[in-house]
Amino acid sequence: MPSVNLNHHKAFQPICTPERLLLGPGPSNAHPDVLKALSLPPVGHLDPFYVELMGEVQELLRYAWQTSNRLTLPMSGTGSSAMEATLANTVEKGDTVLVAIKGYFGNRLADMAGRYGANVQVVEKKWGQAFSLDELEEALIKTRPAILAMVHAETSTGVCQPMEGIGDLCRKYECLLLLDTVTSLGGVPLFLDEWKVDLAYSCSQKGLSCPPGLGPFTMSSRAEEKLANRSTKVPNWYLDVSLLNKYWGSDRVYHHTAPVNMNFGIREALRLLAEEGLEEAWNRHRTNAENLWSGLQRLGLEMHVDENLRLPTLTTVKIPEGIDGKGFALHLLNKHGVEIGGGLGELAGKVWRIGLMGYNSTPENVSRVLNLFESELSVFDKIDSAAA
Amino acid sequence: MPSVNLNHHKAFQPICTPERLLLGPGPSNAHPDVLKALSLPPVGHLDPFYVELMGEVQELLRYAWQTSNRLTLPMSGTGSSAMEATLANTVEKGDTVLVAIKGYFGNRLADMAGRYGANVQVVEKKWGQAFSLDELEEALIKTRPAILAMVHAETSTGVCQPMEGIGDLCRKYECLLLLDTVTSLGGVPLFLDEWKVDLAYSCSQKGLSCPPGLGPFTMSSRAEEKLANRSTKVPNWYLDVSLLNKYWGSDRVYHHTAPVNMNFGIREALRLLAEEGLEEAWNRHRTNAENLWSGLQRLGLEMHVDENLRLPTLTTVKIPEGIDGKGFALHLLNKHGVEIGGGLGELAGKVWRIGLMGYNSTPENVSRVLNLFESELSVFDKIDSAAA
Repeated sequence: MPSVNLNHHKAFQPICTPERLLLGPGPSNAHPDVLKALSLPPVGHLDPFYVELMGEVQELLRYAWQTSNRLTLPMSGTGSSAMEATLANTVEKGDTVLVAIKGYFGNRLADMAGRYGANVQVVEKKWGQAFSLDELEEALIKTRPAILAMVHAETSTGVCQPMEGIGDLCRKYECLLLLDTVTSLGGVPLFLDEWKVDLAYSCSQKGLSCPPGLGPFTMSSRAEEKLANRSTKVPNWYLDVSLLNKYWGSDRVYHHTAPVNMNFGIREALRLLAEEGLEEAWNRHRTNAENLWSGLQRLGLEMHVDENLRLPTLTTVKIPEGIDGKGFALHLLNKHGVEIGGGLGELAGKVWRIGLMGYNSTPENVSRVLNLFESELSVFDKIDSAAA
Repeated sequence: MPSVNLNHHKAFQPICTPERLLLGPGPSNAHPDVLKALSLPPVGHLDPFYVELMGEVQELLRYAWQTSNRLTLPMSGTGSSAMEATLANTVEKGDTVLVAIKGYFGNRLADMAGRYGANVQVVEKKWGQAFSLDELEEALIKTRPAILAMVHAETSTGVCQPMEGIGDLCRKYECLLLLDTVTSLGGVPLFLDEWKVDLAYSCSQKGLSCPPGLGPFTMSSRAEEKLANRSTKVPNWYLDVSLLNKYWGSDRVYHHTAPVNMNFGIREALRLLAEEGLEEAWNRHRTNAENLWSGLQRLGLEMHVDENLRLPTLTTVKIPEGIDGKGFALHLLNKHGVEIGGGLGELAGKVWRIGLMGYNSTPENVSRVLNLFESELSVFDKIDSAAA
């Protein structure tokens, strides 16, 4: 036997994390009960207790999403893995996928769809706007896609896409409706079945108050049909819902070893959401966001998105002229332990992103961030000038 | 706004998990310090603290695997996602992939490779045996693959494949060597660089004493070269190492929101392994396994695998004639809180699988399982006859 090489042997100290209030685009702080659940000793992924817990997670997810879809489950990866799963399972080579792009995550959907061999067509809006029904109908007529993919809550812009009527359009033009609900689940009204959504995905670390690591996924019977009629295997074993269905369905056939502790966490997170009630949670997010918006306006700051399209979970604030936005965010993190986000893609350097999601959507956090903007923006301005 | 549908609203109790000693094929029990780390409040995935932690995880993984590969990181999914990543990144349509199959996970590699358009060729051995160098060389000459994929520690059979000389064969016949180390990392001697392994993956929940949810992945510069020379995008956005490299490398460009708490956990798990020392951990696994084997033999039980090929982490024990193996395992779980595994695939109903991995590889657990086999196998036999 060779001898052990110690080049990469490092004696690190036990982990000691800094205290952070996470008011960026996510992750958001987790609920303490969720963190407790995460640290419970694992059980086997075929243990009768765990199998029962899987059913509970599925049922609670259906409630949170307002869907009765049989195939509703958390993918064993982050939200991005569930995003990929919606496309991997339904796109076949040559299928036209129409992506309605109004921000960073629309672009990602287009990138992903292309990797699955789709004929990707796009319809675009400026970052900060939403689509009208007419714009979508025109694009549907022009491209006649198999799937219309779009983002409900654009995390890069803070826009909430109005959904009324879009599902009906997709039925009319015979395509599936695929919806990103990463920044809406648990914080913003969502009615998947009412809206006739066929495929949706989300994450665990925003409105659900759980750490990142699971990707809620759901699929309607119309989408199931497309999966069943595939002429080729799903080009991704890990995300293949026809296999996952045998584990999450009544057969309980081993697929992969489930991330059991993350599922303890999301079960608890979803339970707490059900305990609070969806409408109560949505109202809480709305009220706190409105207070944030009016407070920021009182400080002379401007929102990037029109009020009627603004997400209650994530607010984009224009960085005032002359302020180093990245420097200010770093100052809040390093000196005050508060994380806010910078702009992404087109909006890099132009906006901050302030999240009030799940456990973090509280009046106290609204005050905290407003007070910091009031006291630190001016101080920071001075620091900035002094350094210059 | 529609009204909220309460069909799927369930008022579940706060989570309360049963106590389990996990002596099956994994997950294994996690180290208490790892569970504590998991429950720390999350930080942002671009937080300077987190970015430093990523580097620590990478360095500790290099030590655990005995590799200096730059691209060494945990995939944000379970071991199966890392398994898929090794193939997704390197296989291009039409590439010949030779899979050396001697159990369930070899078959899975073949299934996965096919999904990426590989021309899959196989060489097979009976479940319970390992390959000789001659057998592999013959198959390499016959198929001239771009990749030879095989399993170091077959979790379905309990066989440890001797690795000496295989890497040299792969250099001679100009192919990459891809190795499954799911049930060996942390528990069985592994020298990736010495063995000239180009691609490897593992899991968090066995030898590392962390819950399932991360998939350690590593890639040599030879494999990087194959990735760099692809004529098409990696057909999987989530697992695309050329993108992940920008986040895990020095650029720190956002790819997906990392499962930060799981990474807290694996950082602690790897730190504890480095603190113990690799050789010490390997010796501990070997000693405890040998005591398990001799104890089982004293009870008249027979191992499925020849001693020279036996894995110290996972033992396959033949189910004696007349015993309902599944019923016995369920009895241990329900009456004694001890999980052992049943057979998988070809070995279903024929063997039990007993794991002594990571935190669970202790003399106390060896005694516990031997005492249970001694007292319960006979009791169970009576119960079984009484019920019949």
